[in-house]
Amino acid sequence: MIQSLDPTSRPNDDQLAAVLAACDRTRERDLADLFRLLAQPSISAQGIGVPECSALVRDLLAESGFSARIIETPGAPVVYGERCNTPGQPTLLIYGHYDVQPADPLEAWTSPPFEPTIRDGRIWARGVADNKGQFVANVLGARAWLETHGELPINVKVVVEGEEESGSPNFPAFVAAHRDLLAADLVYVSDGQVFETDQPIVEFGNRGMLYIELVAHGPSRDLHSGNFGGVAPNPAWTLVHLLTTMFGPEGEILVPGVLDAIRPVTPELRAALDAIPLDEAAALAEIGLTIDGKAEPKGLPYYDRLMVRPTMNIAGFTSGYGGAGSKTVLPAEARVKMDLRLVPDQDPALIYDQIRRHVATHAPGVEVIHHGAMEPVAVPLDSPLAAPVRRAVEIGFGVAPVDVPMVGGSLPSAVWPREIGVPALVVPYGNADQQNHSPNENMIEERFYAGIRTSAALLGEMAGLRA
Amino acid sequence: MIQSLDPTSRPNDDQLAAVLAACDRTRERDLADLFRLLAQPSISAQGIGVPECSALVRDLLAESGFSARIIETPGAPVVYGERCNTPGQPTLLIYGHYDVQPADPLEAWTSPPFEPTIRDGRIWARGVADNKGQFVANVLGARAWLETHGELPINVKVVVEGEEESGSPNFPAFVAAHRDLLAADLVYVSDGQVFETDQPIVEFGNRGMLYIELVAHGPSRDLHSGNFGGVAPNPAWTLVHLLTTMFGPEGEILVPGVLDAIRPVTPELRAALDAIPLDEAAALAEIGLTIDGKAEPKGLPYYDRLMVRPTMNIAGFTSGYGGAGSKTVLPAEARVKMDLRLVPDQDPALIYDQIRRHVATHAPGVEVIHHGAMEPVAVPLDSPLAAPVRRAVEIGFGVAPVDVPMVGGSLPSAVWPREIGVPALVVPYGNADQQNHSPNENMIEERFYAGIRTSAALLGEMAGLRA
Repeated sequence: MIQSLDPTSRPNDDQLAAVLAACDRTRERDLADLFRLLAQPSISAQGIGVPECSALVRDLLAESGFSARIIETPGAPVVYGERCNTPGQPTLLIYGHYDVQPADPLEAWTSPPFEPTIRDGRIWARGVADNKGQFVANVLGARAWLETHGELPINVKVVVEGEEESGSPNFPAFVAAHRDLLAADLVYVSDGQVFETDQPIVEFGNRGMLYIELVAHGPSRDLHSGNFGGVAPNPAWTLVHLLTTMFGPEGEILVPGVLDAIRPVTPELRAALDAIPLDEAAALAEIGLTIDGKAEPKGLPYYDRLMVRPTMNIAGFTSGYGGAGSKTVLPAEARVKMDLRLVPDQDPALIYDQIRRHVATHAPGVEVIHHGAMEPVAVPLDSPLAAPVRRAVEIGFGVAPVDVPMVGGSLPSAVWPREIGVPALVVPYGNADQQNHSPNENMIEERFYAGIRTSAALLGEMAGLRA
Repeated sequence: MIQSLDPTSRPNDDQLAAVLAACDRTRERDLADLFRLLAQPSISAQGIGVPECSALVRDLLAESGFSARIIETPGAPVVYGERCNTPGQPTLLIYGHYDVQPADPLEAWTSPPFEPTIRDGRIWARGVADNKGQFVANVLGARAWLETHGELPINVKVVVEGEEESGSPNFPAFVAAHRDLLAADLVYVSDGQVFETDQPIVEFGNRGMLYIELVAHGPSRDLHSGNFGGVAPNPAWTLVHLLTTMFGPEGEILVPGVLDAIRPVTPELRAALDAIPLDEAAALAEIGLTIDGKAEPKGLPYYDRLMVRPTMNIAGFTSGYGGAGSKTVLPAEARVKMDLRLVPDQDPALIYDQIRRHVATHAPGVEVIHHGAMEPVAVPLDSPLAAPVRRAVEIGFGVAPVDVPMVGGSLPSAVWPREIGVPALVVPYGNADQQNHSPNENMIEERFYAGIRTSAALLGEMAGLRA
């Protein structure tokens, strides 16, 4: 574990300045490299274009000076690259994912999701923020350093998976099976988004997730609701009544046991939460709201709801007729897709069992499908690894970052302390209105370049750290 | 109002036998005439092919000896035809609808919905049972009589509307505006289906309907459920919690006032309900069920649930992601389509108001859209008009029919007593497993021909009825 810093072995300021100047000169090429990846659909949930995209990522790593290869898994392939030519220097492991969310509803996009376009100073494409534009910035920052000085100042490994948007079902096992290959001093992740103020942040943890689907079965086919209504049970009603027993109208999760393991908020965490800048009205206005949602216990501050409380979200409810006008059908089936965001120390496996038991009690015929899970994780706010990251962000974005103890979104970061004994720190390069997981996903072009500079600066700031 | 029968003015048995023999000779042409209509999509809910189909219906009426024309309405056109050349004889008004339900999910059809096909002794096509194959049988029965004897034995009018599957929003006003044109002694409707035993039936009433849609609005766009979960309210949860206040887990309708107007079951109605043949296990097995649904008050017999109790059906619930795998979205919107089947004396307009008030109280931001309504109606079981209908069915199908006081499905029949002062009797020609409103809608071919014979026989049985 890294404990201290040896300033004599760090690159000098001129060396960093030369790299940053190189970053400014290669913008056109950097953008073209990103566009090539954006034009390749890679939707893990729908099995679209994933191997093709992994090959493009491997090629980008190889062209950037890494020894790169594709490693197969039971699911989507992982791309791995490394350049470890500086013995005695620390090793940074960059994690990203090349898969993207489904693009529907397609008609809501101003320009097609897989035809990357610059408009109003932003890059528009599915996956530009989540996560292609961010891990590519990491890679291109290293390339800038390598092309400027002929070698990297530290050892760098890059691992890019292809199933993060499907809950990374195979990634924890992949890491466990490749502990030596992935050994490092710090895992660095650029993913997610900054807050509405554009204030840069360093994230010390993230909520976990459990993604399930509930399926209720009714008659063997869709029926005429007049000829059978009152006789045939309706599976949509079955799910409505089940869901009501799981989550109350005030935002309270009702499934027994789910809230038991949540840690109390310590004074240190309270202080960190309160120190995060917030314009709540502006944050809500950006998503078209004037009042916010509910989360128990009542009266929680905004960031508490995002960072220290779990959710139970209906991501999709599908049953019967959803087209124009009216159709008098009694549906054969009803499906609810649901994600729960989890906080330390909630265990997704335990919560899955608790939900299964609850469903078996309240709606015995309803199936519970497990689509994926990620554990919550939190790095101590006083970690010594935070200092070089904070400095790199200040260099790259020109503003000192704020520490964020936890973010609402989920990353498979719990795997790192468990399997290779080091934490992950996350620096999001995405803008607050990146609209990832929505139509019109975008990344402010200047933030892409600032991300490249930050990534390059981090290599210099890491040099000289000693175990 | 018709009170008696003058046997001297009825056609003799030889005349009827000649017509029935003609029906048997023209099967090939009759089927071709039906197929021409089936091949023309006419989906009122989606605005597909409706005027085109109205023209085909007009042509069929004209070719069958009726003076036929299309009458425009604010919605889909009505087709009207008449042949009234027998003064002193009663007038029969045939009602049907040429529009059909949407055909999705298309992938569930064995043969395409608008490519009519004979297979296993059945005609397969969207709308063959509901309602093209049935009103066409009425028309072709009249044609057979006309071609055999050169004139019809009574006066016959035919009105075929194009919006029944959308709740007949313009038909009541059409009837009110054309009272003289439509004046008749009896309205005859062939729609719906017989029970599982194939026992022919005469229906004396039908449930009404109110079709509404509930729309809950959340954030202005679909959001990442991690980045906003706990902060942004989820409209699917809003509807789940609202729906729970409207309909309970035991099948009880909870919206105040909705049940108030339901008539008590009289001894006569009780006797008629109990006289309907029933193999409940077989009826449930046909739709893939071993246990039936619920309807309050508890313990009701099967036909009570279909005939004397209302329903509140979720016909569609649509929110967020419904594709394969997982997508972690917090949806911008949630929609529920819902039909209520109503029994005498429930008033759809009053119930719509009651639901609006309930929604305004429990979920003030939720929209309530009115998609259509039909009043329930019941003809007295001792009506003198029933006798010739019963005899015609026995001639056409070879089995004496059972009286059914009420059916679960909805027809706009309440308009007839209100606007032209005569009741409607319904004789379904469809088989129990016709799968109308479902994929693979079908009509047993022999039932189509039996329907033609029944329709022809009815004209003879009506002759001589005197007001």
